[in-house]
Amino acid sequence: MAVYTNLGAETMAQIIAQFDVGTLVSAKGIAEGVSNSNWLIEARRENAQSKRFILTMYESRLDTDDLPFFLGLLDHLAACGCPVPRTIHDRDNQPFRFHEGKAIALIEFLPGISVSDPHPDQARAVGAALAQIHLAAGQFSGTRPNTMGLAAWKQLMADCGGKGIASIDPALEQTVANELSFLASNWPDDLPHSVIHADLFPDNVLMLENTVSGLIDFYFACTDITAYDVAVTHAAWCFSADGANFRPDLSQALLAGYQSVRPLSAAELEALPVLARGASMRFLATRVYDWLNTPNEALVTLKDPLDFARRLTFYSDPAHASIFDFT
Amino acid sequence: MAVYTNLGAETMAQIIAQFDVGTLVSAKGIAEGVSNSNWLIEARRENAQSKRFILTMYESRLDTDDLPFFLGLLDHLAACGCPVPRTIHDRDNQPFRFHEGKAIALIEFLPGISVSDPHPDQARAVGAALAQIHLAAGQFSGTRPNTMGLAAWKQLMADCGGKGIASIDPALEQTVANELSFLASNWPDDLPHSVIHADLFPDNVLMLENTVSGLIDFYFACTDITAYDVAVTHAAWCFSADGANFRPDLSQALLAGYQSVRPLSAAELEALPVLARGASMRFLATRVYDWLNTPNEALVTLKDPLDFARRLTFYSDPAHASIFDFT
Repeated sequence: MAVYTNLGAETMAQIIAQFDVGTLVSAKGIAEGVSNSNWLIEARRENAQSKRFILTMYESRLDTDDLPFFLGLLDHLAACGCPVPRTIHDRDNQPFRFHEGKAIALIEFLPGISVSDPHPDQARAVGAALAQIHLAAGQFSGTRPNTMGLAAWKQLMADCGGKGIASIDPALEQTVANELSFLASNWPDDLPHSVIHADLFPDNVLMLENTVSGLIDFYFACTDITAYDVAVTHAAWCFSADGANFRPDLSQALLAGYQSVRPLSAAELEALPVLARGASMRFLATRVYDWLNTPNEALVTLKDPLDFARRLTFYSDPAHASIFDFT
Repeated sequence: MAVYTNLGAETMAQIIAQFDVGTLVSAKGIAEGVSNSNWLIEARRENAQSKRFILTMYESRLDTDDLPFFLGLLDHLAACGCPVPRTIHDRDNQPFRFHEGKAIALIEFLPGISVSDPHPDQARAVGAALAQIHLAAGQFSGTRPNTMGLAAWKQLMADCGGKGIASIDPALEQTVANELSFLASNWPDDLPHSVIHADLFPDNVLMLENTVSGLIDFYFACTDITAYDVAVTHAAWCFSADGANFRPDLSQALLAGYQSVRPLSAAELEALPVLARGASMRFLATRVYDWLNTPNEALVTLKDPLDFARRLTFYSDPAHASIFDFT
C-alpha cells in the first residue's frame, strides 16, 4: 500500500499527453496496490467535462510480459458488459507504454467503495458478477498459467522451512505438510477451466450500495479451474477477517448469486470443499512466506497467516461440507 | 507521505453521512500529508452530479486546538475569493468532528497539479495569490503565534547538538551558530504583521497551466511578519531543489506578481535579504532536526538539509541583495 515512484507534474502531463484524453487537471498518488504505483488523475478535453482515470506504473514485482493478457482481459470483459475498467489505449493504440523502463497503463476510473463488512445482498451481487466474468471469459483467447497454484504453495512452504513455519504456530508445520499432501492427492483434474480472477477479496470489488460497480486488480488472473475462483471468493467473503467466524448468510447469498448466472455442475459443487481448502492453503502459503521474509522496515502491514489457517480448519471439517450442498 | 489510519467503507460512509453532501460513492486514500491521513472522496446527492472532497484525519502531530484557526482561515479566505478550499461544515455546523478520538475535517476538492519545474508565469501567479491571501487575511480575526520562528530554530539546533550537526557537514555547525546569532541581532521588529501561510512550497500550490487553482496545506499558518511569507515563498520557488541554482527569472516574476497586488513598502523590501536568511534557516533547522532524529525505518523520504544551507549562503552574500532591489 504505497506510491513507490515520484512523478513530477510536468512528467505526468507528458505521459497523459500520449493518450487522447485531453489536458491533465489533477493527479493524486493513491495508497493502493502492492506491486505498482497508482495515481487518480483527471483530464479534460476542451469544452468537455473532465474524466477520471487510474494511472498505474508497474513496479518490479510484475512481469510485463503478462500485461497484454491482463489489459486485454479487461478490454474483453468490459466489451462484454462486465463491470471492469477499460484500459485507455495510447495514441498508437497500445494498451501500455514505458516510462523510464517501467510499464504504465491508463485505466478507466470506476466509482464505488470496497465494503469491509458485507451484507448478504452484496455477497449475492459479487457472486453474480464473478459468474458473469467467468461466462464472458469463455470467449477470451488469452491464456496465462496460474503461477500461484499447488506447485507454488509447495515451493513457498519448502522455501520457508519447517522451523520458520513452526515459529508462527507450533502446530502449523504439520498442518501445512498434511494439507499439501491431501491436496496433491485430491485436487480435481476434470473440471471446467476458464480465465479466473483468483484474488476477488472485498478490496478488489467496488460497490455502490448493493450493486457491483467494479471488479478490479486482475493481476493474479490466470487460466485455471473455474470453480476454484468460486472457492477463493468464498474464502475471501464468507468469514470474519480473522477466519474465526463463518458467515452462513454470506455463503448462501454468494453461492446463490453465482448460480443465478452460471449454475455450478454437480461435479463442481462436489469439488468445492477441496477447492476451498486449496484456496485457504494458497493465501496461507503467501502470508506465511511474507511473514517470514518481509524485512521489518518494509512499508507494508503484514497480514496474519493464521487467518487462513482457521479457514483451512473450517473447510477441512466434514461437518461443514453441507454448506456447498446445493444438489 | 502516507495514509496512517485505515478506515473501512462503512465507517467512512457513516462519517460522510454527518455532512450534508449526499451518499459516499468513492474513497481513495491519498499519499499526501505528513501529519495527517487524507482520502479523496466523492459523494452524490440524489439527482445531482457527484462532488469531490478531501477528508482529512489529523494524526498526533497536529494540535487540534489550532484547528478552529486553520479551518476558520480557509473559510475566511474562500469567502474573500482567494483560491483556497472551503471547509464543509457538518450537520451541526461544526468545521470538524472527532472519530475515535481523532479530529476529522471535510474540505473542498480543488483541481490543479503541483508544478515541480515552474515557469516565470507560474511564479508570477503564485506571487499574486500570496499577496491576495495577505490582503484578505487582514480582515481575519483569528491569530496564532508562529511556533516555527527564531526561538524554535534555536531550540531545534540546540536539541541536535553541535556534533550531530557537524556529522551532516563539518562546516555546518559554525554556519548555524553564526547565522542564529546574526538573525537574533538583525531580525526586524517593526514590519507589518498578518496571517501568513509560512510554507508555500510548490507542493502546496495547485495550478491549471498558469493559473493558481488552489493554495493548500495551511497547517503552518500563523501570525507573523507579512514580508517573511514573501521570503519563505521566494526561497521555496526561486531555486533548483538542491538550492545550488538561483533562478533570477522566477525571482523577478514572483516578486512582480506579489507587488502587482500588494506593493511591498521600502522597509519590507529592505528587510527581504534578512527575512530570506531566516526563511532558509527555518527549513535548514527542521531538516537538520529530522535528518538526525528520524528513525531509519520511518516511512518518509528525508530531505537534504544542505538544500537550504545553500540558499542561506546565497542570501547571505551581499552581492545578491540587489535581487530584492525594487526601489
